[in-house]
Amino acid sequence: MPRIATIETGLYRIPLPVTLSDSTHGEMAAFELITCRIRDADGAEGVGHTYTVGRNGGAVADILRREIPALVEGREADDTEAIWHHVWWALHYGGRGGPVVLALSALDIALWDLKARRAKLPLYQLLGGFDARVPCYAGGIDLDLSVDELLAQTDGNLAKGFRAIKMKVGRPDLKSDVAKVSAMREHLGDGFPLMADANMKWTVEEAIRAARAFVPYDLTWLEEPTIPDDVAGHARIMQAGGVPIAAGENLRSLWEFKNYITSGAVSYPEPDVTNCGGVSAFMKIARLAEAFNLPVTSHGAHDITVHLLAACPNRSYLEAHGFGLDKYIEHPLVLEDGKALAPDRPGHGISFDWAGLAKLVG
Amino acid sequence: MPRIATIETGLYRIPLPVTLSDSTHGEMAAFELITCRIRDADGAEGVGHTYTVGRNGGAVADILRREIPALVEGREADDTEAIWHHVWWALHYGGRGGPVVLALSALDIALWDLKARRAKLPLYQLLGGFDARVPCYAGGIDLDLSVDELLAQTDGNLAKGFRAIKMKVGRPDLKSDVAKVSAMREHLGDGFPLMADANMKWTVEEAIRAARAFVPYDLTWLEEPTIPDDVAGHARIMQAGGVPIAAGENLRSLWEFKNYITSGAVSYPEPDVTNCGGVSAFMKIARLAEAFNLPVTSHGAHDITVHLLAACPNRSYLEAHGFGLDKYIEHPLVLEDGKALAPDRPGHGISFDWAGLAKLVG
Repeated sequence: MPRIATIETGLYRIPLPVTLSDSTHGEMAAFELITCRIRDADGAEGVGHTYTVGRNGGAVADILRREIPALVEGREADDTEAIWHHVWWALHYGGRGGPVVLALSALDIALWDLKARRAKLPLYQLLGGFDARVPCYAGGIDLDLSVDELLAQTDGNLAKGFRAIKMKVGRPDLKSDVAKVSAMREHLGDGFPLMADANMKWTVEEAIRAARAFVPYDLTWLEEPTIPDDVAGHARIMQAGGVPIAAGENLRSLWEFKNYITSGAVSYPEPDVTNCGGVSAFMKIARLAEAFNLPVTSHGAHDITVHLLAACPNRSYLEAHGFGLDKYIEHPLVLEDGKALAPDRPGHGISFDWAGLAKLVG
Repeated sequence: MPRIATIETGLYRIPLPVTLSDSTHGEMAAFELITCRIRDADGAEGVGHTYTVGRNGGAVADILRREIPALVEGREADDTEAIWHHVWWALHYGGRGGPVVLALSALDIALWDLKARRAKLPLYQLLGGFDARVPCYAGGIDLDLSVDELLAQTDGNLAKGFRAIKMKVGRPDLKSDVAKVSAMREHLGDGFPLMADANMKWTVEEAIRAARAFVPYDLTWLEEPTIPDDVAGHARIMQAGGVPIAAGENLRSLWEFKNYITSGAVSYPEPDVTNCGGVSAFMKIARLAEAFNLPVTSHGAHDITVHLLAACPNRSYLEAHGFGLDKYIEHPLVLEDGKALAPDRPGHGISFDWAGLAKLVG
């Protein structure tokens, strides 16, 4: 039984190749990467990480450095449920979301990586292999691109092998959103999976109006039409808008997903393993979705998440998002026929370039 | 128009006079105090604070030091709504609760203190004076006390002038909870306001069983019977248990309170100004409760909250909790005939003993 010996936390500021923008977060010039390396008493290692779009990373790292070691060092590394609940409750006051659950996510990912590496299994098989080939889409952050720029970016994604694409909507005028969605549908052809992401931009009525305007263009889903706090509003948009709804990158617990799912407020639950509570929480959310006959998709951290969706019979599309992080990971995500392949390396199979990251300490 | 010139953050570890315990947080030996001092371009000052029961304070301070100054320096200090929303959305990713909303709460309290001091008004009158004399209860943290110790503590609270008292429940066996509640009712006499707080200890069915067992003892309310994530569970406990329910110290936004209130899941909404989003959010929650014909109570930070409830026609009881903090505040809360008096000093009227606090830097 391997006990947790040490935890080592890193905080890095990863410059983005180009400044990105969406309808809520504004301009993003750098992402923050927070890493968590666990070593057990036998010297085996597991690595987890989380990230932010540029802020709160210091708080996440502070929690991993100041609070978590005393809570978990000496515990059995394989007792992932016990550790998750111990940390959740020990940090509950002032926690229950926010940077605390991002820190817990990184810790939990590291523990699952360690468990799978010790078992000499790729993570997806440890979790219950279903299909290592996971449908995948390119997540574009392209709100401010012109139609021509958007189509050029799309051609690039097609050339990389993507067979499903997501675009941003939520510009100040619905008309220019519709023009871009229309241009994309025409460019991609009938039946090509196309999603649109509004990043919480709209009121409920604005979202219903937008969804109805998008109906002719056959979107696979419309994502985050309004603030994550409004469960009833999402349900109304789903009912009145006529377009499937994806949501979840800003939900921070199994229970928040339960509220959405039982309220009929989401068609495609979309947890992010780095902020929903880690592998432990992501898999519960995915299984909850299965019980409700819902496909599960994902947000961010595709290198880990490909394993999680590869263990889910109800997996929908994996979101592929590189950001600047790909440069610091040894084996980038492999695409074949539009599907991402869960690697057969033990654990999640991510190897960070620690020397390269050392130059980006935040 | 006073612009924000500087923000200064302090993190202090306040030892408790005695180690406290409740059914969820276990033993608490020290609280963390995080202060936020704002100065405007005229040199006027406003002071806010938040606290934790011992963990996550480092993350709160990191957010106040690393993220918030760049977001608010140079802004109009009186634009509290604009600043609140700017900070909420700038820190939304990795935020939306947890240490981020505690930091925002401290900032918002400081801005309201500054606004009231510049207006030369006590905060409660700036917000809309209703009644400076606020009914008040002593919040005991006494789960592990014997019946005799509990009654002795209660006599101490009566001697201090309290005319309403809250006790802890949630011991491993319901029988000993009932014995203590019964002894308290007998000791205090019929009609004396008595509340009981379970600190999220129970499942829904356990809570219903406990509530029914408490019915003969005429509790004013039963508090936090189960986890804050279970809105439907709270509604079921309210319906089936036959005892009014208080909840809110672990809800982190106006929207979470809205879900409880519109679901019939709470009789006494109980926001904490230091973790629900500050004065701006507390007052919205209190006004929402008024619209739903619900009395509003409070958690923690009584020196500030007495002003907020003094501005609410639907105010119920203020929770009075000293912890170790009273020693570092110049004017402790004044009780008269069981009511707390909102002071007539400008702002919230709290003056910290900065020299004393300097010895407790965390």
